[in-house]
Amino acid sequence: MNRKLEIVITELEVITQLRKVAAVLAWDQETYMPSGSAQARSEQISLVLSLAHARFTSDTFRQSLAILVDLDGGAIDRDGLDLRQVRLLENVWHDWRRATALPVEFVGELARLTSQAQHVWQEARAQNDYARFSPYLEKIIDMKRQEARFHGFEDEPYDALLEDYETGITTKQIEQLFAVLRPALIELVGRIKSSKVPDRHALLTQEFPEDLQWEFGMEVLSDMGYDLKKGRQDRSAHPFTTDFHPSDVRITTRLNARDLSMGLFGTIHEGGHALYEQGLEAKYFGTPLCEAISLGIHESQSRLWENYVGRSMPFWRHYYPRLQARFPGQLGAVPLDDFYAAINAVRPSLIRVEADEVTYNLHIMLRFDLERALLNGDVTVKDLPGLWDQAMAKYVGVTPSTVAEGVLQDIHWGMGAIGYFPTYMLGNLYGRQIYEAALAQIDDLEERIAQGDLLTLREWLRDNVHRLGRLKRAGELIQDLTGQPLSAGPFIKYLQAKYERLYDL
Amino acid sequence: MNRKLEIVITELEVITQLRKVAAVLAWDQETYMPSGSAQARSEQISLVLSLAHARFTSDTFRQSLAILVDLDGGAIDRDGLDLRQVRLLENVWHDWRRATALPVEFVGELARLTSQAQHVWQEARAQNDYARFSPYLEKIIDMKRQEARFHGFEDEPYDALLEDYETGITTKQIEQLFAVLRPALIELVGRIKSSKVPDRHALLTQEFPEDLQWEFGMEVLSDMGYDLKKGRQDRSAHPFTTDFHPSDVRITTRLNARDLSMGLFGTIHEGGHALYEQGLEAKYFGTPLCEAISLGIHESQSRLWENYVGRSMPFWRHYYPRLQARFPGQLGAVPLDDFYAAINAVRPSLIRVEADEVTYNLHIMLRFDLERALLNGDVTVKDLPGLWDQAMAKYVGVTPSTVAEGVLQDIHWGMGAIGYFPTYMLGNLYGRQIYEAALAQIDDLEERIAQGDLLTLREWLRDNVHRLGRLKRAGELIQDLTGQPLSAGPFIKYLQAKYERLYDL
Repeated sequence: MNRKLEIVITELEVITQLRKVAAVLAWDQETYMPSGSAQARSEQISLVLSLAHARFTSDTFRQSLAILVDLDGGAIDRDGLDLRQVRLLENVWHDWRRATALPVEFVGELARLTSQAQHVWQEARAQNDYARFSPYLEKIIDMKRQEARFHGFEDEPYDALLEDYETGITTKQIEQLFAVLRPALIELVGRIKSSKVPDRHALLTQEFPEDLQWEFGMEVLSDMGYDLKKGRQDRSAHPFTTDFHPSDVRITTRLNARDLSMGLFGTIHEGGHALYEQGLEAKYFGTPLCEAISLGIHESQSRLWENYVGRSMPFWRHYYPRLQARFPGQLGAVPLDDFYAAINAVRPSLIRVEADEVTYNLHIMLRFDLERALLNGDVTVKDLPGLWDQAMAKYVGVTPSTVAEGVLQDIHWGMGAIGYFPTYMLGNLYGRQIYEAALAQIDDLEERIAQGDLLTLREWLRDNVHRLGRLKRAGELIQDLTGQPLSAGPFIKYLQAKYERLYDL
Repeated sequence: MNRKLEIVITELEVITQLRKVAAVLAWDQETYMPSGSAQARSEQISLVLSLAHARFTSDTFRQSLAILVDLDGGAIDRDGLDLRQVRLLENVWHDWRRATALPVEFVGELARLTSQAQHVWQEARAQNDYARFSPYLEKIIDMKRQEARFHGFEDEPYDALLEDYETGITTKQIEQLFAVLRPALIELVGRIKSSKVPDRHALLTQEFPEDLQWEFGMEVLSDMGYDLKKGRQDRSAHPFTTDFHPSDVRITTRLNARDLSMGLFGTIHEGGHALYEQGLEAKYFGTPLCEAISLGIHESQSRLWENYVGRSMPFWRHYYPRLQARFPGQLGAVPLDDFYAAINAVRPSLIRVEADEVTYNLHIMLRFDLERALLNGDVTVKDLPGLWDQAMAKYVGVTPSTVAEGVLQDIHWGMGAIGYFPTYMLGNLYGRQIYEAALAQIDDLEERIAQGDLLTLREWLRDNVHRLGRLKRAGELIQDLTGQPLSAGPFIKYLQAKYERLYDL
């Protein structure tokens, strides 16, 4: 390899390892760490991440990168480099520019603010007290505006923040996608509300012993091709996926004996994320070629498995008898069609994480509109609860009775993660487009799934998405796979076809 | 605080945190890590430890230390420092001198060699093939001789190696202790062998369901005052204690349904280690004042709880009815005296980790003699298996039939840990002296234990040992607590009194 590139990659490997070490510490914190050591652990995580940040933004690293890349404009000296190496450097420069755009004091101040804000948010939510949290949110919005100015932007500050979560996408694109989604979803929700088809949701809130739920989830994970020699599942308060290397990708789930879908679809969702990380090429570990493209593409993999596979009829043709065998008393006499209706019940609700496929993106749209308006100064933090409730009533048709189940429900803003929410919507759209490419390219994919063959799909995803790392941007990947740009069309058509049948519309 | 000292301490805190981070990674490796990620994890641990080492041996740290300490001789500039701070600096200088005495290349080479040697040792033991391992051991002994020369020594190279595990002790002192132990132990074993008292050991090899063993162990740990908000127990192949901060001290155990004593005494042993770490003063975290004195003193705490408390009659007066209640079928009809005889059965055996209180130190003596002779060039690696077997026959009265249960049984030499074994013997001796000081100073200690009060002892140990950190050296601690120097006398007297009664001698 090019000696100059090697110097950059060797240092990147160290930086990446430090980040992964911090991820191990965080995984332990959420799973097994004793409650009394929160303070010590938080200091350990901060230390390791700050060492990684210091190396990445150091003069030494700047100098070795500058030999290969024009640090101002990002032009790569391609001499002796292949395409893969050029892409690698483009991504490194992108990340480096993002990391070095913010003054160290600013980063420290924001970290302290959001660390406090998360604690305050927890208390405020528990006490249903928006006024307790709002001064922190005001400061966060101020700092986020400042952050956008440090990065620079063409149209509006939100563009600069989006870039951290979904490289290359613009506020205008998100807006246009929602402009297509909004009327279609509201119209579909309206029709579903007037349907006479009975709601089967109560089937899922019988008593389902947690150990049997766990076993069923492990069976599905194993069939999906989640390699348990290179991963494991544990329990935590909030499910997540984390990776320390392609050979160590872990997920967590949460189980509730009175809610079958929480654990089941949570497990499949995290399993989808985990397959992505296990499918990255370990030989590129440390570089962007062994990293996921974006949060949106990551979410496409979890949503594809959770919804397009896990909430599909073919999947349950195979798995429903197996689930019935584990829960004969609860489901033995329930026909597949009723179970399928239950797991796909559309029930407009206040809480995003409990939302069904149809209403989910409306929750995201509301958040996108509000955070964008906050950044642009069109609305104030003070006005937020009222605006939230209005939008919920308008889009989803329900009104929160408390701020805890309204504007205070998500941790994201307290974390300073402004611009994160749209990636959930993008995940649904990318996921549908990718799944339809798989349907087009794999013979009888749904037949295979109906026979319990999930591995063919996993292999296809591995070849066409996972192993690429960040060789392509999200838009490029979708264009190459589907021949079409990112679009809400396939997702909307899918929802319409599925729910018209389910609700006899 | 003295500004110059503060600079040293701030950097020490970072170095310590990095070591603790590596300990978290190692804990995960031994408990929950998927098997397929061994390679990635070993790189992560190496990286973090090498960053810690680089900082500790850096010019920057040297310069800030040099302001307070004469780096050649260790004299402290006491101006404005209290005794605690002086002791802190003496320890830092001691550790720094040890860390900087070895050239970086030497450290790297030794790390590579011992990493390989441990793999080879595992294979060699499995295949019962000493010749597979011996070339590695030869290199290790060579490098250890070299290491001793780097550190320098007065009498013999073994002194220089001992210092890493038991600061301030000499080979001559160890030799003198064994000179007292040897005849006393051999004589006692001989008398026990000729005793007519029946062996009750089979009581412990009935079927004891592992979950019930676990519950009983947790009950004892909790009574010992092991704070489960600042610690936890898990299972692993080999039991160990690890600490990430006084607020996060974890132990592991291993359970075997056909061996009650393995899990039970393993748990109490690690619990003793854990109480020490939980009892260190968190406000000094990062410095030697929040570190254990030595391996020997650490082992004194585990052996005190395991043997002097956990294998004592007062302890079982309280706990035996509780154990019987958990295992009524196995132990309900067994009298306390028989159970007490079973857990204290002296059964000369080949394997150190399974040895009883009486023969244990003979296993250590054998290793001490051999590793010292290897370093001095008095014996060769090639001669080791034969010498091992001869010594086993002479001291313990049994002869290995394979090298796997002979010279290859311990991982220590493959790790390069030459000079470690004597700390096990020291732990038994220190532990007995400390326990007798507790007996002298706490009214009715054994009465309290017989009533299930273990906390009084824990408090005494916390006040008199744990919270001191490295304020005193091991010998100083023993002298201050007991008015006597380190001595084998109390241990031998204890064994004689206990086993003469048990074996009706």
